[in-house]
Amino acid sequence: MGKPLVGIVMGSDSDLPVMKDAADILEDLGIAWEMVISSAHRAPEKTAGYAKDAAGRGLKAIIAGAGGAAHLPGVIASFTALPVIGVPIRSGALDGVDALYAIVQMPAGIPVATVSINGAKNAGILAAQIIGAGDHSVRSRIEKYKDSLAAGVEEKDARLRTLGAEKYLGS
Amino acid sequence: MGKPLVGIVMGSDSDLPVMKDAADILEDLGIAWEMVISSAHRAPEKTAGYAKDAAGRGLKAIIAGAGGAAHLPGVIASFTALPVIGVPIRSGALDGVDALYAIVQMPAGIPVATVSINGAKNAGILAAQIIGAGDHSVRSRIEKYKDSLAAGVEEKDARLRTLGAEKYLGS
Amino acid sequence: MGKPLVGIVMGSDSDLPVMKDAADILEDLGIAWEMVISSAHRAPEKTAGYAKDAAGRGLKAIIAGAGGAAHLPGVIASFTALPVIGVPIRSGALDGVDALYAIVQMPAGIPVATVSINGAKNAGILAAQIIGAGDHSVRSRIEKYKDSLAAGVEEKDARLRTLGAEKYLGS
Amino acid sequence: MGKPLVGIVMGSDSDLPVMKDAADILEDLGIAWEMVISSAHRAPEKTAGYAKDAAGRGLKAIIAGAGGAAHLPGVIASFTALPVIGVPIRSGALDGVDALYAIVQMPAGIPVATVSINGAKNAGILAAQIIGAGDHSVRSRIEKYKDSLAAGVEEKDARLRTLGAEKYLGS
Amino acid sequence: MGKPLVGIVMGSDSDLPVMKDAADILEDLGIAWEMVISSAHRAPEKTAGYAKDAAGRGLKAIIAGAGGAAHLPGVIASFTALPVIGVPIRSGALDGVDALYAIVQMPAGIPVATVSINGAKNAGILAAQIIGAGDHSVRSRIEKYKDSLAAGVEEKDARLRTLGAEKYLGS
Amino acid sequence: MGKPLVGIVMGSDSDLPVMKDAADILEDLGIAWEMVISSAHRAPEKTAGYAKDAAGRGLKAIIAGAGGAAHLPGVIASFTALPVIGVPIRSGALDGVDALYAIVQMPAGIPVATVSINGAKNAGILAAQIIGAGDHSVRSRIEKYKDSLAAGVEEKDARLRTLGAEKYLGS
Amino acid sequence: MGKPLVGIVMGSDSDLPVMKDAADILEDLGIAWEMVISSAHRAPEKTAGYAKDAAGRGLKAIIAGAGGAAHLPGVIASFTALPVIGVPIRSGALDGVDALYAIVQMPAGIPVATVSINGAKNAGILAAQIIGAGDHSVRSRIEKYKDSLAAGVEEKDARLRTLGAEKYLGS
Amino acid sequence: MGKPLVGIVMGSDSDLPVMKDAADILEDLGIAWEMVISSAHRAPEKTAGYAKDAAGRGLKAIIAGAGGAAHLPGVIASFTALPVIGVPIRSGALDGVDALYAIVQMPAGIPVATVSINGAKNAGILAAQIIGAGDHSVRSRIEKYKDSLAAGVEEKDARLRTLGAEKYLGS
Repeated sequence: MGKPLVGIVMGSDSDLPVMKDAADILEDLGIAWEMVISSAHRAPEKTAGYAKDAAGRGLKAIIAGAGGAAHLPGVIASFTALPVIGVPIRSGALDGVDALYAIVQMPAGIPVATVSINGAKNAGILAAQIIGAGDHSVRSRIEKYKDSLAAGVEEKDARLRTLGAEKYLGS
Repeated sequence: MGKPLVGIVMGSDSDLPVMKDAADILEDLGIAWEMVISSAHRAPEKTAGYAKDAAGRGLKAIIAGAGGAAHLPGVIASFTALPVIGVPIRSGALDGVDALYAIVQMPAGIPVATVSINGAKNAGILAAQIIGAGDHSVRSRIEKYKDSLAAGVEEKDARLRTLGAEKYLGS
Repeated sequence: MGKPLVGIVMGSDSDLPVMKDAADILEDLGIAWEMVISSAHRAPEKTAGYAKDAAGRGLKAIIAGAGGAAHLPGVIASFTALPVIGVPIRSGALDGVDALYAIVQMPAGIPVATVSINGAKNAGILAAQIIGAGDHSVRSRIEKYKDSLAAGVEEKDARLRTLGAEKYLGS
Repeated sequence: MGKPLVGIVMGSDSDLPVMKDAADILEDLGIAWEMVISSAHRAPEKTAGYAKDAAGRGLKAIIAGAGGAAHLPGVIASFTALPVIGVPIRSGALDGVDALYAIVQMPAGIPVATVSINGAKNAGILAAQIIGAGDHSVRSRIEKYKDSLAAGVEEKDARLRTLGAEKYLGS
Repeated sequence: MGKPLVGIVMGSDSDLPVMKDAADILEDLGIAWEMVISSAHRAPEKTAGYAKDAAGRGLKAIIAGAGGAAHLPGVIASFTALPVIGVPIRSGALDGVDALYAIVQMPAGIPVATVSINGAKNAGILAAQIIGAGDHSVRSRIEKYKDSLAAGVEEKDARLRTLGAEKYLGS
Repeated sequence: MGKPLVGIVMGSDSDLPVMKDAADILEDLGIAWEMVISSAHRAPEKTAGYAKDAAGRGLKAIIAGAGGAAHLPGVIASFTALPVIGVPIRSGALDGVDALYAIVQMPAGIPVATVSINGAKNAGILAAQIIGAGDHSVRSRIEKYKDSLAAGVEEKDARLRTLGAEKYLGS
Repeated sequence: MGKPLVGIVMGSDSDLPVMKDAADILEDLGIAWEMVISSAHRAPEKTAGYAKDAAGRGLKAIIAGAGGAAHLPGVIASFTALPVIGVPIRSGALDGVDALYAIVQMPAGIPVATVSINGAKNAGILAAQIIGAGDHSVRSRIEKYKDSLAAGVEEKDARLRTLGAEKYLGS
Repeated sequence: MGKPLVGIVMGSDSDLPVMKDAADILEDLGIAWEMVISSAHRAPEKTAGYAKDAAGRGLKAIIAGAGGAAHLPGVIASFTALPVIGVPIRSGALDGVDALYAIVQMPAGIPVATVSINGAKNAGILAAQIIGAGDHSVRSRIEKYKDSLAAGVEEKDARLRTLGAEKYLGS
C-alpha cells in the first residue's frame, strides 16, 4: 500500500490484540500504516528516536496505545510536531481509567488526541480523518464508511421490526 | 487571515472564556478560525446544519467544547467526516468528569479527539497539527512553538538556579 | 394491544437483552409499545426523524438506552417535547458510569428521566406511571403491581422463617 | 393557579434555594404546584403520609430533592404509584455524587426519574412533560419553551459574530 | 439460644449468602439473633413496623444489608432508637460503591454504623461489641476471638517460615 | 458528669473543629466523655496504650476521627474489644474519600463503625445508642431527641407554607 | 544469600501470590530477603515488634503489602526509620483503590513509598534501588536489568516486524 | 552543605510552592539538595539528560513533582537506576487524582516511589530514609525527627486536656 502514513506504536505485545483494530480499519480505508513495539519506560531512547524521525519519514499521524501510567503517547508527542492519537488500554485494577487520565490530561502546549478506552478502531478512523483533512479521496472514503454505518443500523432495525425481540435474540 | 480552516463551537456563552484559548493559539500559529455558539440540545437543527456544511465550506477541523452531558462534539462528529476535537468543560458538581466521559467514550465508528478538561489551548494546537499534517509551513510553525516551550523551561530553570526557591517565589 | 404509547429505542442490537425488560413489564402492565434500533451517532437523521414524529404518532413517552458516551436519550430529548426516559447501559471499561453521567447530567432546559444502570424494567414502569398520571386504570394496575411486590417479600420472609437460612440457600 | 398538580418535597430548608427552580419553571409553564418540607429520616411518618395521600389529592407527579444518603425520593416512591422525580442535591464532601447514586440506583420495581445534580429546573420541566403526555395545551407550552431555547442560542450566536469574543466577554 | 438480641434484615433473598456471615459469627459468639427479609422499597410498611417494634421486643441492635440505592438501613434507623449497622452489598455495575454511599452518608441526627462492602461478618462482631459494652461475658468472648485471630496469624507465619513461599503456595 | 463513658480521639488538633460535634451531642444526651489527641502514625505507642486501657477504665465506646490514610480508628480497634466508631475527616485533595475508604474497608475480624465524612455528630449519637442498648434512660433520651428532629421538620414546613419560598429565603 | 536486607511483610497468606513477585526479583538482583505474615489489625503487637527490631537486625528496607483498609505499611512506618514500601493489593469490591488511598495518603512526617496496585515486583526493584543508592555493585545490577528490559522490547519489535500482527498473535 | 545528594525536579514553576517542602525538610535533616525545573513534555531532552547524569554526579535519589498527566517522575525513572520519588501535584479539575494515577501505576520494571498528593515533605523524608539506609548518622537524625513528632502530639494532647476544646479552639 505504499509508504506508511500512520505509525501505530504500543509499549508491549500484550496491547497488540487491541491495537490491531487501528491497523485493520486503516487497511479498510486504504491508508498505509506501520506497527512498532516501543516502550516509553523500558526503551525510552528507541521511543524518542522513533518520534523524532516520524515526520521526516513521511508519517502524517502517530497512534500510540498504552495502559496503566500510560506515558507512551505523551512522550511521543513531546518529540514530534505531528498529531499524536492516544489509546488508553484497559488493564489492571483500574481498568484503564488510569491510562485515560494519564493520556488525556496533558499539559498546555503538548496535546494528545485521546479516544475511548480500548478505542483503537476510532484511533484509526481519526488518523484517516486527519489525512482526509488534506485529501479529498480519503475523506470521501470516510463518508462512505459513515454511510455504511447508517445502513447497518437501518438493516438491524428492519430485522428487529420483522422478527420481534424474542426471535431476534434467538437468531 | 483568509477563509477559516477551523470552526470553534460551544453550546453556551458560559464556555467562551475557556474556548477563547483555542482561538488565541490558532491566531498565534497563523491559522484562520471562526467561532459559533450552537447547542446540541437547545439548537439541534442549527448544530446539525453547521456540521453538515463544514467540510464544504472549507473547514479542515472542528473544535467543540461542552460541559455536563457534553453531547456537542459527538453530535457534530455524527454529521461530518472532518476530524472533531472535543474539549470537556469543567462545570457543576462533577467538575468536568461527566463531560470527559461523555466526550471521550464515543462508540466505534465515530471518534472525537479528546483533550484535557478545559484544554482548549491544546485543542487549538491539535487543530494546527492536523492542518500541519498536510502543510509544511504550518508544521514548521508548530516546531518553532515547541522550541519556544523548551526555551521557556530553560529560562525559568536558570532563574531558579540564580535566585533560589525563596527569592523566586517572592519575585 | 392497539397503537403503541411508548417507544423503546436503542443504539445497537447489543443493548437488546437489557432493553427487552422494558417491553416485558409494559406488556405485563397492558401498555402497547414499539421497539426501534437507531443510533445517535451512526444514524443521526433517522434518530432525529423518529423523535420529531413521536408525539404526532401518539406516543406518550420514549425510553432510550445507550452505553458509553450515551447520547441517544439526550439527542431524542432535544427533538421532542415528550418525556424521555434514559437507561444507561453497562458496557466497556467504565461499566456504565460513563453512560450514567452522559445521560443524567443534561443541561437546563432538556431533561432526561434517568433510571439505574441497566434499569430497563424500571424505565418501563416509569413510562407506565407517566401514562397512569392521566389514566386511572393504568395507575390502578401499577398499584396492583406494587402490592404484588410487597406480597413477594412477605412470601420470601415467611419461607426464610420456616426453612432457616441454611435450608433456604440449599433449596 | 388552581389545585396543585405537582408536589415539590425537600428534606431540609437548606435545599430550598435549589428546589425553588422547579417551582419557578412550573409557574412559567402554567402548572400549579405545592411545596413541602419533609425528611425521610427525621420525619418518616410525615413523609409516608404525604406520599400515600398524593394521588388521592390530585397530584400527577412528585419532585423530591435530597443530598447525601438521599433517601427522600425513593421513600416517597415506595408509598405511591405516581411518577417520582428525584433531584440529587450537591452538598458535603462528595458534592452530590452520593445523592446521585442513592437516587438513581433504585431496585427493580420502584423507579425514581433522576435528573442532574442540582437539576431542579429540569425536574420541573420533566413534571410538565409528564402532565403534557396527557394534555395537549401543556405540551404545546413546552414546545414553545423549547423554541425559546433555540432562539436564545441563535441570539447569542449572532451577538458573538457581531462583537467577537473579546468584546462579548467584556460586554 | 434464648430471645434474639440482634435482628438481621435484608431487602431480598439474593443478599442472604452475604448476610448469613453475620448470623454465623453471632452464633460463634453465643448471641441469639433473628433473620428477616423486608424491603424498604417493596415492603415499606412491613419495614417500618419491624423497626418500630424492635426495641420493645428486646433487640439490642439491628443489622441491615442492602445493595444499590440501599435505603434499608437508613429507613430502619429513622424508625428506631436502637443502633443500626449497615452492610453495603456488592451488586450491579457500581459494585457496591452506590450502596456504601447510600448507607454511610446519612444526615445529621440519624446515624447508621457502616461496615465494609459485603462486611456482614464484621457487622455481626460489631453487634456483639455493642452488646458487650454492657455485658462483661460477651466482651470477654470477643477478646478471646481477637486472641484467636492473632494466633491464626502466628500459625500461618510459622508455616511460611518453615515451608517457604513456594511450598506454602503449593500446599 | 461522672466518669467518661465515651473516648473521643483525633490524630491532630486540626480535626478538633469537626470532632467537637461529637462531644456537644453527647453533652446534650447526658453522657460523659473525654477527648484525646493521639496519632496512629506520629504517636503509635500512646495510641496503642490508650486503646488497651480503655475498657478497663470504664469506657463503653471510642470515637476516632482521622483524615487522609486515616489509620487511627482501625489501629485503636486492633487493640480493644470495645466498639470503635470512625469519623472520616474531609481534608486534602481527595476531600475525605481516602479517609472513608481507609476506615470503612476494615478486614474481617476487626470492624470499625463508620459514619459519614465529617459526621462527628452522628458518631456521638451512635455512641449514645450503643450505651442506650443497655440503658433505658439513655435510650429514652435518644427517642426524645428523635422526636425533636421530627418536630423541627414540622415547624419548618409550617413556616414554608405560611411564608412561601420567596419570603422564607429572604427571612 | 547471607543476612536479609529486605523484609517482605503481608497481612494474610492470601496476599502471598502477589507478594512473591517482590522476593523473586530481589533474588534475581542478588539481594537477600525474608518473608513474614503479620497483620496490622489481627496481630498488632507482632507487627509493632517486627518494625521496631527491623533496623537493628540489619534490614535496609521493608516492603509491606495489604488490601482493603490497608494499614500494614503505615503502621510499620510508624515504628521504624527505615524506608517502607507499600504494595496496595487488589481485592474486594473496590479492586484495590481503597488500598491505594489507605497507603499513599499518609500524613506529613511518616511517608510510605507506594507502588502500583499489585506492583510487588516494582516494590522489589525499588528496594534494590534503595540499597543500590549506597552500593555500586547493586546499582550496576539494576542497570543491567534495565538494559535487559530495553533488549526485550527490541526483540519483540523485531519479531513483530518480521511476522506481522496476524502471525505474531497466532504464534 | 556539600555536594547535593538529592535532586528535586519539577515541570513548572507553578509547582514550586509545593515542592519547596521537600527542600525544607531535607535542609532540616542535614542533607544537601539541588532544585531543577525541567518538563517531561516541554523539555524532554533536558529531562533525559538530567536523569542520565544524576547517578554519575553523586545524587542518591531524585524527587520529581508533576500534576495532570504527570509524566515527569516516570520519564526520569526510565533514564536512571536511582530511586525516583514521585509527588502528585494537586491541580486542575481532577485535583491530583490524575497525577496520582499517572505516577503510581508504573509498569513492571520501572518503579516510582509515590507519596501522597502534594506530599513533598514526605518525599523529602523518604529521600532521607533512602540515604539513611546506608548512613547511620542520617538514620539517627530521622529517628530524632520521629521522636519530635510524638512529642508534638503529647504536647497538644496535654494542652487540650488543660484548656478543653472550647478554649483550645479559641486560643
